[in-house]
Amino acid sequence: MRFFSDNAASVHPAVLEAISRANRVDTAYDGDAISRSLDSLLSQVFETDVTAVWIATGTAANSIALASLCPPYGSVLCHKDAHIQNDECGAPEFYTHGAKLALIEGDGAKITAEALRQKLAATPGGVHWAQPHALSITNATEYGRVYTPEEVAALGEIARAHGLGFHMDGARFANAMVTLGCAPADVTWRAGVDVLSFGFTKNGGMSAECLVYFDKAKAAGVVERRKRAGHLLSKGRYLAAQIVALIENDVWLENARAANAGAQQLARACAGRLLHPVEANEVFARMTPDEAAQLRAQGFDFYDWAEGEVRFVVSWDQPEAEIAAFSAAIAAL
Amino acid sequence: MRFFSDNAASVHPAVLEAISRANRVDTAYDGDAISRSLDSLLSQVFETDVTAVWIATGTAANSIALASLCPPYGSVLCHKDAHIQNDECGAPEFYTHGAKLALIEGDGAKITAEALRQKLAATPGGVHWAQPHALSITNATEYGRVYTPEEVAALGEIARAHGLGFHMDGARFANAMVTLGCAPADVTWRAGVDVLSFGFTKNGGMSAECLVYFDKAKAAGVVERRKRAGHLLSKGRYLAAQIVALIENDVWLENARAANAGAQQLARACAGRLLHPVEANEVFARMTPDEAAQLRAQGFDFYDWAEGEVRFVVSWDQPEAEIAAFSAAIAAL
Amino acid sequence: MRFFSDNAASVHPAVLEAISRANRVDTAYDGDAISRSLDSLLSQVFETDVTAVWIATGTAANSIALASLCPPYGSVLCHKDAHIQNDECGAPEFYTHGAKLALIEGDGAKITAEALRQKLAATPGGVHWAQPHALSITNATEYGRVYTPEEVAALGEIARAHGLGFHMDGARFANAMVTLGCAPADVTWRAGVDVLSFGFTKNGGMSAECLVYFDKAKAAGVVERRKRAGHLLSKGRYLAAQIVALIENDVWLENARAANAGAQQLARACAGRLLHPVEANEVFARMTPDEAAQLRAQGFDFYDWAEGEVRFVVSWDQPEAEIAAFSAAIAAL
Amino acid sequence: MRFFSDNAASVHPAVLEAISRANRVDTAYDGDAISRSLDSLLSQVFETDVTAVWIATGTAANSIALASLCPPYGSVLCHKDAHIQNDECGAPEFYTHGAKLALIEGDGAKITAEALRQKLAATPGGVHWAQPHALSITNATEYGRVYTPEEVAALGEIARAHGLGFHMDGARFANAMVTLGCAPADVTWRAGVDVLSFGFTKNGGMSAECLVYFDKAKAAGVVERRKRAGHLLSKGRYLAAQIVALIENDVWLENARAANAGAQQLARACAGRLLHPVEANEVFARMTPDEAAQLRAQGFDFYDWAEGEVRFVVSWDQPEAEIAAFSAAIAAL
Repeated sequence: MRFFSDNAASVHPAVLEAISRANRVDTAYDGDAISRSLDSLLSQVFETDVTAVWIATGTAANSIALASLCPPYGSVLCHKDAHIQNDECGAPEFYTHGAKLALIEGDGAKITAEALRQKLAATPGGVHWAQPHALSITNATEYGRVYTPEEVAALGEIARAHGLGFHMDGARFANAMVTLGCAPADVTWRAGVDVLSFGFTKNGGMSAECLVYFDKAKAAGVVERRKRAGHLLSKGRYLAAQIVALIENDVWLENARAANAGAQQLARACAGRLLHPVEANEVFARMTPDEAAQLRAQGFDFYDWAEGEVRFVVSWDQPEAEIAAFSAAIAAL
Repeated sequence: MRFFSDNAASVHPAVLEAISRANRVDTAYDGDAISRSLDSLLSQVFETDVTAVWIATGTAANSIALASLCPPYGSVLCHKDAHIQNDECGAPEFYTHGAKLALIEGDGAKITAEALRQKLAATPGGVHWAQPHALSITNATEYGRVYTPEEVAALGEIARAHGLGFHMDGARFANAMVTLGCAPADVTWRAGVDVLSFGFTKNGGMSAECLVYFDKAKAAGVVERRKRAGHLLSKGRYLAAQIVALIENDVWLENARAANAGAQQLARACAGRLLHPVEANEVFARMTPDEAAQLRAQGFDFYDWAEGEVRFVVSWDQPEAEIAAFSAAIAAL
Repeated sequence: MRFFSDNAASVHPAVLEAISRANRVDTAYDGDAISRSLDSLLSQVFETDVTAVWIATGTAANSIALASLCPPYGSVLCHKDAHIQNDECGAPEFYTHGAKLALIEGDGAKITAEALRQKLAATPGGVHWAQPHALSITNATEYGRVYTPEEVAALGEIARAHGLGFHMDGARFANAMVTLGCAPADVTWRAGVDVLSFGFTKNGGMSAECLVYFDKAKAAGVVERRKRAGHLLSKGRYLAAQIVALIENDVWLENARAANAGAQQLARACAGRLLHPVEANEVFARMTPDEAAQLRAQGFDFYDWAEGEVRFVVSWDQPEAEIAAFSAAIAAL
Repeated sequence: MRFFSDNAASVHPAVLEAISRANRVDTAYDGDAISRSLDSLLSQVFETDVTAVWIATGTAANSIALASLCPPYGSVLCHKDAHIQNDECGAPEFYTHGAKLALIEGDGAKITAEALRQKLAATPGGVHWAQPHALSITNATEYGRVYTPEEVAALGEIARAHGLGFHMDGARFANAMVTLGCAPADVTWRAGVDVLSFGFTKNGGMSAECLVYFDKAKAAGVVERRKRAGHLLSKGRYLAAQIVALIENDVWLENARAANAGAQQLARACAGRLLHPVEANEVFARMTPDEAAQLRAQGFDFYDWAEGEVRFVVSWDQPEAEIAAFSAAIAAL
């Protein structure tokens, strides 16, 4: 039973159906009606006029967003555990042409307003030190924590005061939204976010993310950057269709709700073991190698995060029986 | 009726089925069994031990291949009408970090051995002029012409003598193979090609190309370059499945055969108008604006290539009735 | 006797003296009084408020200027024989992060307004083709031709109409100015030029060029780009001093006048052989290999430009006797 | 009295003389006899056959060295306080095309073998995390500490075992050599270093550094990278002459000896205040703002390093009287 990654989850039936339906569309690149509907669809979701650009992966989405916000000679402030720093083999550096990531510490991979202020105060001016041009946060974070609208707004205010572009990596934005229960607008543009990488792949999509520019001026060059990165799929309609399928009928929220609920169930089984509060679909827990081995012997698959630490990820399609079985197995340790 | 691009064609049913089947696979990135089968599958197709790397687009495939062959300070020899020069918004420059494309002329977007030799002879040595490190040709070419194994081998010999890596852009490799009727090996590694961008998207795939390294040493860094370009799909199994579906049962050849046959039919209707011999699935023809307008008025859609010139592309899924109707309409002009 | 390059000429005594004087200055990087005087000094030369940035080489000056004007996904229009295209080993591509150079033909390495208009008209729009963002011309050109203020203004008007930044490579700007006899402003900002690479190295300097931004907004990021290219010399005062020494007392014009006059003398000796009108300090002439050998046997050194073509360059410090001797030798062929 | 930077020091008379002498040389770029003598000269200094490449700045030297050792998708291990990380505005990222710097902690900006081993052990494999390809250390370090041959050799052994290229930033290599008293070979190639940035600018040069490749195979592409960065000076003989002037007659060692001795004198005055042992020409000391103000009021100029911390740098040309006066003033606080 797979608890190691939501990247391994299946594709939602509505997405497969939408892909099949897209087979009757016959315009190349992003000139088709489905692709062209995204601006309007995402503008509805976010209650403001946005520029929406489909892209196949979160790594590319994040990196193009950063290239929109930061010149090659600048730096991007982010958490030291951020995906853009640790898991993308230098993709942000590739797309920004060598901008530096300037790292900030903080519990649960969250950046506090105070930590951001301190980092900025400690950054020397002048041309010798790469100057900060952007701030990037992840919501939900790499440790499954969620930023509230108030927390994001506090960061957004500092970003604006320092002329920083503000990016949100939303690989698990759906999971954050379900937990927050607020409007998507509240935790994004109303809180100062300029561009969001809105993730669908981990949440029932096949290969589909959406760059959402709330500050449309910052979208200048985005389609050119996508093209020259080889990310303008010649049959983009099959990608756009996935996004539409997940947004229509709120499938994205339904999927995230299921995953989050499963994580809560595991969290209860992990009482006393939790390394971080469980606010999305990930559970980080203390566990001895011996305990981990016992669980694996029962057929449960998951990551060893660090010495004595494990990570469980609940996917949108995880059968309730699996979650119940896993919870029971953990509780029985 | 669409004759403007094979990028607008539908996805073959076998591909859609394979995507559905891949939904039961649950390993992330390229760790799944389908992805891992590609080396072996492509090694069979090419009768030699290859490194095969899936990638979503031809632009990315070409550009990563060139980055494998040419350092940032070098140049890539290619035809002045090559896709890598004209249609990728600087993607080769992005991936190679600024290598130059050095352009060669020639009929039908083909590079002759003589033209290559002359270009090399005319290139000054030293550090002021970017030195050639690679040669890239397209088969079938941008004008639907096909290189024979002999022609490729003549280029390959020169490439080897000058220490150039040799890349083949095979966006329409299937169409070339059908015309040539030889073994895929004959026109690639046996003729000196180091790496092939093997295209599936235009030929019944959804978003699927395969980098095939015949010189496996040159594949060093390819998976890292793919990752940092954001092209390591987290659910890569759905991409790998497309390639497998098209290779199994020779669907790729069957599709190309249909497209090429349609192009031959149009070519006959275009007798006296042809700008290039028709050797793949594209037809380039002389046509007055008035004639073009007449065809469009009858519902036929195609590109104006240049003043007084049009391009028709026949896709794998083009109904015979459409081709017949179009042929008749052209002939009736 | 050296007629192969003005890069091989000596440094003017005033420059050496200025370097010695700079030895008493003690502030690092570009914080010293000499460096800080450049804005004002160049503003006087050009009769408008400019941002002036010293840099050690023309290659770096040109490339940083282009990076100021063109995003990585754009293209720079230039002549096919431009130095930035042929002699800088891809430096523009390095600094712009992969922008393409789009080449225009024309006699004497000059771009006419008509040729520029045609090139722009022939450039497809959209994201597949790198869109032009800048125009770069060289004055005097690679063939020693000079653009008049009217010619530059005609190009400048087209550039403005198409939203192109306008760069002038002035490696031999002094030689052009002497020929034109106009105000430096007339052939630069008054004609629409946004940024000039003002060359001093070939004209009596040691290693000194000056980027002159007439459109100061376009200078954003220039000092950061210079720093990260390793071109912010830690002892910049010795570079700035060279520029000041050459501008003060019009040494730059005096030097260019001498070089141009020498070239005119050679041009007269080359009557009937000239490939281009001689308008700066370079002479391009037809010459058989046998004739060239005869001259070399007499101790004259120069470049073979192409088959049956030679190039002579007269330097600022060329003794009159050498020029006379060379003229006589050519005439005697 | 200037104690804020050795970049503000004057140029040694022998260097100015050498520059004047170079005025009689007349070959461009690096084709002249002085430039061509560097390989041999540096081979003597290092008692092995090296490839020596002049370059104007330490930032460019370091960055080109790193580009020789690390592909764009790799990482360079260095100290968190390294110049390449903090003071070069992303130059390593520019030249390597986006390689990451992976930071290691340690007293005095030194990396211990143990710290290096731990960092490597903690680095995940695979394509998601940029894999280490090079190690870069600074000798003397940013805090004026010196690596012994044994310490370098211990790092060199680990580097070799992990396939890492090994770079030494020697901006103050002369100061380290004077302190160590060993052969230059002992602390470089005999200890596993592949390439050294040998600094001359801070030690009596004007703008002169030398890349010294002990592993000559790793020098592939270095002159091309220098050219396309605009660092191939067209009159390189004036740069090469500086290096020769400083090496001949051991001026480089004499200069460093003077600077180091001055630093020792200040160190004695700083007894009880020292933040780091003084092993080169820099002194880092605790000092209250009030004390610093007192010194400045007496005409002494220096950097505030951090809150309650100051840095003094003694230059090669610092008059003894200045050093004595400063020592007395410090002691009198």
